[in-house]
Amino acid sequence: MSDSIKALTEKIVAFRDARDWKQFHNPKDLAISISLEAAELLEIFQWSGSDTGADSEKKVEKIKEELADVLIYALLMGNDLGLDILEIVSEKIKENEKKYPADKAFGRSEKYTEY
Amino acid sequence: MSDSIKALTEKIVAFRDARDWKQFHNPKDLAISISLEAAELLEIFQWSGSDTGADSEKKVEKIKEELADVLIYALLMGNDLGLDILEIVSEKIKENEKKYPADKAFGRSEKYTEY
Amino acid sequence: MSDSIKALTEKIVAFRDARDWKQFHNPKDLAISISLEAAELLEIFQWSGSDTGADSEKKVEKIKEELADVLIYALLMGNDLGLDILEIVSEKIKENEKKYPADKAFGRSEKYTEY
Amino acid sequence: MSDSIKALTEKIVAFRDARDWKQFHNPKDLAISISLEAAELLEIFQWSGSDTGADSEKKVEKIKEELADVLIYALLMGNDLGLDILEIVSEKIKENEKKYPADKAFGRSEKYTEY
Repeated sequence: MSDSIKALTEKIVAFRDARDWKQFHNPKDLAISISLEAAELLEIFQWSGSDTGADSEKKVEKIKEELADVLIYALLMGNDLGLDILEIVSEKIKENEKKYPADKAFGRSEKYTEY
Repeated sequence: MSDSIKALTEKIVAFRDARDWKQFHNPKDLAISISLEAAELLEIFQWSGSDTGADSEKKVEKIKEELADVLIYALLMGNDLGLDILEIVSEKIKENEKKYPADKAFGRSEKYTEY
Repeated sequence: MSDSIKALTEKIVAFRDARDWKQFHNPKDLAISISLEAAELLEIFQWSGSDTGADSEKKVEKIKEELADVLIYALLMGNDLGLDILEIVSEKIKENEKKYPADKAFGRSEKYTEY
Repeated sequence: MSDSIKALTEKIVAFRDARDWKQFHNPKDLAISISLEAAELLEIFQWSGSDTGADSEKKVEKIKEELADVLIYALLMGNDLGLDILEIVSEKIKENEKKYPADKAFGRSEKYTEY
């Protein structure tokens, strides 16, 4: 399989269609689902305190699964709304370049509203 | 630009490197950030009641931005941990095929633990 | 037991202390935990489409558990930071009264930034 | 005002009723709102890395506001579903006492499913 977003999305949609699940996938419930999968990803780091990394094999294995779930629902939402992922991400980067000019934002983690 | 996940990820990483932000992007804070962006996406549907769609132009414009943010952080996390997005999503689909066999799951929205 | 927030919080803290769990309860991980429990509460409504209610006994039973978890972590966080729950909620209501004057906000669900 | 959960909830409900907002507060959108407020609370800790505390005055001021919002929606949800907060929290603690017996769980942060 090629490394294209389109091809990957088609694979996900085929999985869904084989189960007739499109009927449940309205935008509101898809947005809820992205949030829920993001929470499962975050759960891997619960109670880890100042250990902010992902060094153990076990942690990485869990991350793979939950990160994949986030991406699956995100790509489905994009697909259902007819969005071009490459375009929306590129547009957002352009916007971020204005909000966070490289010289001003260099090495700073604050929100642009704090500049 | 090609439609490849790799090329898109490189674009995102270049944006980050120009700002020297990698130092803040530990896995725990990236997982937090994916959750926060997912919440901003979900906020678009707050108080919408039984209107589960995304019919207005205004709604879709907001979705584009927030969905892009979710994808940006998800691709960054994958990049930082050296994960192959195509592979982890394909693996997750395979796993879901076992959990949700097409004949059993057809037209049903319950979790597999309810079967 | 009295219906006081203080008494309830003491009960929760006693549960924690009996397990020596305070060591894990830094503010960042508590904030993560509140988010995770909120996600479990939200999961009850995943794929419910335009059915926004909580009519079945089964749904209400689950809500009780997850809502309790949200409250437990929220009260723990308030306790650990020495916050007076009654005061911070009353303060927030006062602030909201300014942001959302009753006459202007009557029957409208938009954010105040939209007025 | 007394420190009772009931009195505090009545205050929140009075704020809502003065704005005729009950019409928007279905259980699904309330669950979404608790998640969104939990995310705003979590945002305070975004990019904080291994600094898991809440030592600055500024941080605590923000926490007060966002924690209050979480509690406001949680108490509204409980109110709307006729739940007794004291009871559901006490019940959940009892359940947790079974899942996490003090001797077994002492000083351990793992989920009970890992025991």
